[in-house]
Amino acid sequence: MENFNFYAPTSIHFGKGEIKELTKIISEIGKNVLLVYGGGSIKVNGIYDEVYRLLPDSDFTITELAGVEPNPRIDTVRKGAALCHENNIDVVLAVGGGSTIDCSKAIAAAYYYEGDPWDFTQDRSLVQKALPLVTVLTMAATGSEMNMGSVLTNPETNEKLSTGGVAMIPRASILDPEYTYTVSKWQTAAGSADITSHLLESYFSQNTEAVVQDRMAEGIMKTVIKYAPIALAEPNNYEARSNLMWSSSLALNGLTRAGKKGTWSCHAIEHELSAYYDITHGIGLAIITPRWMLHVLNDQTVTKFVEYAENVWGIDSNGKDAFDVAKEGIQALYDAFVSWGIPMTLPEVGIDKEKIRLMSEKAIEHSTLATTAYVPLTADDVEEILLNCF
Amino acid sequence: MENFNFYAPTSIHFGKGEIKELTKIISEIGKNVLLVYGGGSIKVNGIYDEVYRLLPDSDFTITELAGVEPNPRIDTVRKGAALCHENNIDVVLAVGGGSTIDCSKAIAAAYYYEGDPWDFTQDRSLVQKALPLVTVLTMAATGSEMNMGSVLTNPETNEKLSTGGVAMIPRASILDPEYTYTVSKWQTAAGSADITSHLLESYFSQNTEAVVQDRMAEGIMKTVIKYAPIALAEPNNYEARSNLMWSSSLALNGLTRAGKKGTWSCHAIEHELSAYYDITHGIGLAIITPRWMLHVLNDQTVTKFVEYAENVWGIDSNGKDAFDVAKEGIQALYDAFVSWGIPMTLPEVGIDKEKIRLMSEKAIEHSTLATTAYVPLTADDVEEILLNCF
Repeated sequence: MENFNFYAPTSIHFGKGEIKELTKIISEIGKNVLLVYGGGSIKVNGIYDEVYRLLPDSDFTITELAGVEPNPRIDTVRKGAALCHENNIDVVLAVGGGSTIDCSKAIAAAYYYEGDPWDFTQDRSLVQKALPLVTVLTMAATGSEMNMGSVLTNPETNEKLSTGGVAMIPRASILDPEYTYTVSKWQTAAGSADITSHLLESYFSQNTEAVVQDRMAEGIMKTVIKYAPIALAEPNNYEARSNLMWSSSLALNGLTRAGKKGTWSCHAIEHELSAYYDITHGIGLAIITPRWMLHVLNDQTVTKFVEYAENVWGIDSNGKDAFDVAKEGIQALYDAFVSWGIPMTLPEVGIDKEKIRLMSEKAIEHSTLATTAYVPLTADDVEEILLNCF
Repeated sequence: MENFNFYAPTSIHFGKGEIKELTKIISEIGKNVLLVYGGGSIKVNGIYDEVYRLLPDSDFTITELAGVEPNPRIDTVRKGAALCHENNIDVVLAVGGGSTIDCSKAIAAAYYYEGDPWDFTQDRSLVQKALPLVTVLTMAATGSEMNMGSVLTNPETNEKLSTGGVAMIPRASILDPEYTYTVSKWQTAAGSADITSHLLESYFSQNTEAVVQDRMAEGIMKTVIKYAPIALAEPNNYEARSNLMWSSSLALNGLTRAGKKGTWSCHAIEHELSAYYDITHGIGLAIITPRWMLHVLNDQTVTKFVEYAENVWGIDSNGKDAFDVAKEGIQALYDAFVSWGIPMTLPEVGIDKEKIRLMSEKAIEHSTLATTAYVPLTADDVEEILLNCF
């Protein structure tokens, strides 16, 4: 097991009606609130009104930043940081999914940074200090509600890059599974694929000694496999929504990654798809992952793929060829994504072959895929993986 | 899933040589350090000297409280709190296992409490404020390094009772698996049983919807089952020691308990054994647990026991009677404890039948076993469970 630092200090308030804690949480920090949200679904489902009820004019001053994009843009971060200065903001309140939270993290840090916040994606050490951040989660997917990461997009340069820092970790997050009842089938499937990918990216690591992490990751994967179809069939099923929601936080708060090393392969590739085509992140991951798995399956990795097939999918390996078992596990994942309604080819999400080579080269350029991935990849490898998605 | 608050803000520094972080961690808090430790093994294995090297006289003033007992006593807490006042202590540094850490937590809180610290065991709301606590863990067992709990013993009244509060959560904990190389076979087995018990106590809960928690608990249990025998056979096996050490923290930092309800049954019973006979906590748990399982196995609980047998022990239930499968799982646990070298009867740890009835009644009196346990128990039930340990 590699040495690691585990630090996940976010206070999680999980369950029905936990929004009631908002007044206490915010008032312990300050009065001037920047409320950040996305396309306005929170006005439809009542959370917006609830926030205003719990943070009344008599005690709080709310400034709004609405319209955060899926794949949040650096311009929105700049706008948010300016609002914080103009309104003496004490606390950033993100109400939404991973995009809204990622954007809010960058705003909170940009407040204390004199340069341009896009710099954060070039050098994480620039994230030194941030306004306190509180989140109200409305989607089970990115895990941003309980970690230090933020992914930002610069549409001018077609770049989608990540940053992060301890200062960006949310102070508190409110997770009410009922808020995800109205999440569409598309986003439910994409979110479940995103959670699955976060687990798989660390599960397949060159480090083989971090066993308790892998056993936990398998447990979370099995939970997602069980409950994603139920949430898709019965959007108001609390048991399914609550297990998916908590799984999303657990999959990316450092627990399953601690003690393991290596660059995340599918995320590095997918970020190029989203940067050039603005597709839904989780859908891109679902399309890429099984192809990546087949590409990196070899004599060195087959044992881990057999472990995956057995422990996650319950595939009996007795008397079978290891590569056959490994491929059964990969096929099981592919079939699950299909059953969740995910289109499993790039043309189905509007991507043709024109920029495949460019994106393959950019994936190498923007990451350490070539050196520290589970199986190091060249631009040719990435291109082959992407062409297998047609 | 029940609503829950998850809050585990301890900064964990895990791995070989991580003691190097001690200077930075302590200096960010203060200069006057209360060093708390147990029987002196830290002088043999070099950690004591390392602490003095990293906290030199030129920058820090160290006051010592040595000799914390296994099952730490309230008198030692009182003594520690007095030392804090006499020496203007800024930070409590616990170097040891769960007993040393539990004692240090109570000292840290007693510093700010005007009454007697035994009051904490009667009313947790009295734990309001505490000195910052840093721990260096030397044993994989209680999980105290990453949670808010503390168990204290009053030998005058034969009481072993728990307390806790957010203020008691360690600020930072250093977990170097190499520090556990010198832990005896007896303590390695007892610690592994303790970890297992922490997982089982929440696993068997009346709440059946907290599924991701149970899948993770199974993963941690499988890790302990795999590595306890390896650590016993090869005390210097880093892979085994590191997986056990991180499992100990994960088993009791709130992760597997979140969203579940109910009184812990085996702990409530074991605390009486330790209170009256001062036996090793983990050994008492190992003796009690399989007997408790058989006692509560019934038509309502059998499904959960089958799940346990299948998912933790890999027992194939196909075509078998559910009760037979459940009993196979319980027997597998019993056999594992035997294979770890744990004496599995009470007489072997010096307990005769004289106080069995008294301890059974006290277990009910000191807990909510009778009302909110997985299967509520009477004093007669507890007595029967204990008599089955002969």
